Amino acid sequence: MKTDKKFVIAVDLGGTNIKFGLIDTGGGIHYRARRETAADRGKEEVIARIFSGIEECQKACDDSILGIGIGSPGPLDVHTGVIIQTPNMPGWENTPLRGIIEQKFGLPAFLENDANAAARGESWIGAGKEVDDMLQLTLGTGIGGGVILNNRIWHGFQSGAGELGHTIIDYNGRVCGCGNRGCIEAYAAAGGIVARFEERIAAGAESLLVGKCRSPKIEITPKLISEAASEGDRTAIEIIEETGRMLGAAITSMVNAFNPQMVVLSGGIARTGELLFRHIREEVGKRAMYPLAEELLIVPSKFEDDTGIIGAARCLLDFLEENK
Amino acid sequence: MKTDKKFVIAVDLGGTNIKFGLIDTGGGIHYRARRETAADRGKEEVIARIFSGIEECQKACDDSILGIGIGSPGPLDVHTGVIIQTPNMPGWENTPLRGIIEQKFGLPAFLENDANAAARGESWIGAGKEVDDMLQLTLGTGIGGGVILNNRIWHGFQSGAGELGHTIIDYNGRVCGCGNRGCIEAYAAAGGIVARFEERIAAGAESLLVGKCRSPKIEITPKLISEAASEGDRTAIEIIEETGRMLGAAITSMVNAFNPQMVVLSGGIARTGELLFRHIREEVGKRAMYPLAEELLIVPSKFEDDTGIIGAARCLLDFLEENK
Repeated sequence: MKTDKKFVIAVDLGGTNIKFGLIDTGGGIHYRARRETAADRGKEEVIARIFSGIEECQKACDDSILGIGIGSPGPLDVHTGVIIQTPNMPGWENTPLRGIIEQKFGLPAFLENDANAAARGESWIGAGKEVDDMLQLTLGTGIGGGVILNNRIWHGFQSGAGELGHTIIDYNGRVCGCGNRGCIEAYAAAGGIVARFEERIAAGAESLLVGKCRSPKIEITPKLISEAASEGDRTAIEIIEETGRMLGAAITSMVNAFNPQMVVLSGGIARTGELLFRHIREEVGKRAMYPLAEELLIVPSKFEDDTGIIGAARCLLDFLEENK
Repeated sequence: MKTDKKFVIAVDLGGTNIKFGLIDTGGGIHYRARRETAADRGKEEVIARIFSGIEECQKACDDSILGIGIGSPGPLDVHTGVIIQTPNMPGWENTPLRGIIEQKFGLPAFLENDANAAARGESWIGAGKEVDDMLQLTLGTGIGGGVILNNRIWHGFQSGAGELGHTIIDYNGRVCGCGNRGCIEAYAAAGGIVARFEERIAAGAESLLVGKCRSPKIEITPKLISEAASEGDRTAIEIIEETGRMLGAAITSMVNAFNPQMVVLSGGIARTGELLFRHIREEVGKRAMYPLAEELLIVPSKFEDDTGIIGAARCLLDFLEENK
């Protein structure tokens, strides 16, 4: 059906799945598609799957398509649209993904870091809709970050800004996946949370999960810890409280530097809920420079799975607006 | 002598001295004045001295004066021109200093946080002249910070951004003057450097300064430690190296968040020189996300005493440009 609306095709390239959306200029999702990434079959295969998903969205649309927005793991260069590295997808070094897509479809395209895109989606029609300046942390396997200033992604000199998961909380602390020591990611991403839990158990703490922990079949996850905490498990509660305090310390450094109006937390671990948020807010309230915590909002993401495609769509629209 | 130039009167309000400058729109300083602050004599007296210094600059100028730029300790509100608090000058809570000066002189005025003003001066005609995005740390009694993005001060939601001295390096660490724990200011400002030196001496380390340290008449200062280091004093060298590594950790968090092109270090402690800078650069090189440290410049300030007035002048010019 033809309407007066204009559309963007959005691509969210992940290590496991590629999500696609046909999204209007108000953020409404009109069509969705999905492919398995199958990164192990090589780059050409992944690119063929990206093409196929975009074509599926094109077929679903009788109206004008303004362009294609792509969110991808980084580091990447937003100016050239080149993926510099993707740790989880070997062989992608220096891939000009934006150019490849533009050439294939004859449409303008824009390539953005996935955590940045998520933040921009949130600032567009999510939790940050009413604010101009916000930070977003995506808590999952790693901790992604995005910095939104004046309703635009802050990219920095080499498109590398917003790596908020690598804010140090203990300069002599745990080794992080990035090679640094003491990054908040090493404590409050999935691996760090589970490691801290298992260290407590090894040191003799009790938990409902101890039996499960010892079984070779069940892997402790932040989700299991969160469920145990809601059942009153003391060790699980302490781990979540500690996670909140650690995140609060890291967010304090960010708040002192940026003085944002809002910090949005997304990703599975953010869904731990109020126990986590309360400890984050208390810690930032105690630590941040006066008066920066007074009116600061620390809130969960409004989206679950759609952040990636909504953000990628918005990034394409930002790009078109800036290059009119 | 009358010229075609246009001028700004700049005021740098410090706890000990108030500096004044008659500055042209290219940053040239044509006249300087100075008053003791005499904060203990009360706010009215300090304001009278500010007026008197401005009048002295007016008399020295036969040309057009565009306005008055004022740098002041914070926190303050740049939008209203009100000083919210000045920890070192009691009785200044909620003083509308900008309005007071505008009313007295009938000229536009702009009030800016002194560390922000210093950073903007540096980005205007100092070390950051060629870059658009930079961070500045002023290492002294405290650690002031300023964030310059796209050649403008980043103020944030409550004019409170840029408190880079309160970036945490150890969330369980030393108590900072701000009430937080583990801020880089607690380690690498004057008090923290001296405390770490004295702790080493107390633990049995040797130093050329030990005799001086024990004498009630000589107070250990970062300058003395720096001088001892240049004479080969092992303990002093270790303290400076450690200061560099700690600053490097804090700067890493900032670089990962902002991806700036340059970090400028000013203030007395930055004049410790190459030993300090080498350890900062090495640490950031080891810790920052790839490729953010690759092209990053970490450099000393180009100014000594004039940063405050040059920056205050530029802030007034920025304000006039934005409100044309």
